[in-house]
Amino acid sequence: MRFSVFVPPRISDGVLPGVIFLSGLTCTEENFTTKAGAYKKAAECGLVIIAPDTSPRGKNVPDDPQFFIGQGASYYINATEPQWKTHFQMEQYILNDLISEVVDYFPLDPSRLGITGHSMGGHGALTLFLKHPESFRSVSAFSPLCAPTQSEWGRKAFAMYFGSDESIWQAHDATALMKARGSQRTSRPLILIDQGLADEFLESQLRPDLFEAACSSVNYPLRLRRHVGYDHSYFFVSSFIDEHLEHHRAHCVEHA
Amino acid sequence: MRFSVFVPPRISDGVLPGVIFLSGLTCTEENFTTKAGAYKKAAECGLVIIAPDTSPRGKNVPDDPQFFIGQGASYYINATEPQWKTHFQMEQYILNDLISEVVDYFPLDPSRLGITGHSMGGHGALTLFLKHPESFRSVSAFSPLCAPTQSEWGRKAFAMYFGSDESIWQAHDATALMKARGSQRTSRPLILIDQGLADEFLESQLRPDLFEAACSSVNYPLRLRRHVGYDHSYFFVSSFIDEHLEHHRAHCVEHA
Repeated sequence: MRFSVFVPPRISDGVLPGVIFLSGLTCTEENFTTKAGAYKKAAECGLVIIAPDTSPRGKNVPDDPQFFIGQGASYYINATEPQWKTHFQMEQYILNDLISEVVDYFPLDPSRLGITGHSMGGHGALTLFLKHPESFRSVSAFSPLCAPTQSEWGRKAFAMYFGSDESIWQAHDATALMKARGSQRTSRPLILIDQGLADEFLESQLRPDLFEAACSSVNYPLRLRRHVGYDHSYFFVSSFIDEHLEHHRAHCVEHA
Repeated sequence: MRFSVFVPPRISDGVLPGVIFLSGLTCTEENFTTKAGAYKKAAECGLVIIAPDTSPRGKNVPDDPQFFIGQGASYYINATEPQWKTHFQMEQYILNDLISEVVDYFPLDPSRLGITGHSMGGHGALTLFLKHPESFRSVSAFSPLCAPTQSEWGRKAFAMYFGSDESIWQAHDATALMKARGSQRTSRPLILIDQGLADEFLESQLRPDLFEAACSSVNYPLRLRRHVGYDHSYFFVSSFIDEHLEHHRAHCVEHA
């Protein structure tokens, strides 16, 4: 597995807070690293930035002709179906392997982590935050898939990874997770989501309106900003990444 | 020929000043566009940004097995040798075709242009600025090749493009041009150059020390900043692009 790590200039020998960025469909660790323009602000905020590859890779790893399933599909789940379960353990990879590997080699404080992401990676950020409240102090997302159990791509992928029992799917769907767990959390940090209104996937796949309604139903604080004219590209991410890093700084640095 | 154009938010119907960014070896119009993180500051400065592909392309265009000659070599010259002269007219392309094409379709004021670039494109920026004082109000460069007639790659390329008469080469070498013309200009705007000291090409190919000496010999104002730890990548460009855009703003916007 490959990942990139940015370490800001350090003023002492201590460990630093960090943010994990999860990328979307077809991406690797390189998309965010080269295109998001995040590191100037990350240096200013004193945040380590970790950007992993988004899927298992290799010729012996299962894949699928549909690009939204298999290698590059960027679901941050642990698959249970026989074809997928050996390699597609991305939830465990992010939470256990990746963080501990980074801690071994870089000055990261794993108790002060935020998580964010784009598109499928935005969904990954929301779900990992909701499933693992002990692991992340803050969360944000760019153009996230919000309700995979209610979109074509998500339904096809979940059927492959988890089988046909849709009740199991709910534990891996950001909107369903918010409805089920949003009211029970002891810590309820504000969720920041940015969404472009010229995004070609907005109506068919992303559906932030469903997540917004779920937050409202459990009175969970959400700042969902809709931006006229912005599409689904990394130009959108680069336009607002500084504000997301400030959001994570407020939770991971200033409340240290 | 392909190019990208960024147009900042406009406060009136008027035309806007702009900056041309010339990329280096093996690049296309995409490298700067996706990796430099320039557009937030460009929007703030009110600058149009034009990033052209760096060479003629296509299966009928001459090329060379050496990657620093031919397609992608990113010399901004008009070749005179028979093999190259039909297509390799990048100096004329930038000055005539590109600018007039952009003016036809975008709100660019061609009388308020700056030019910058990276590596081979940094050399292109310096030489086009020195050859055509009427065309550019400001210039800057990142990690530029500074004296191709004194480097291996430059000597091989110039022999191919211009033939073996080295006296002709001098008219296309930034350091030689500065010595020959730097004292004669009526307008002598400050040249800004940033150079990383961990740049693998610094000693063998780039040689900013030679350009610095040439500027000193004709008393031309140069700000050459050497940065410990930075390499030849676009991460270096993205680290200092904001300051370069401020430099061009000072000449192209504020002195309008």
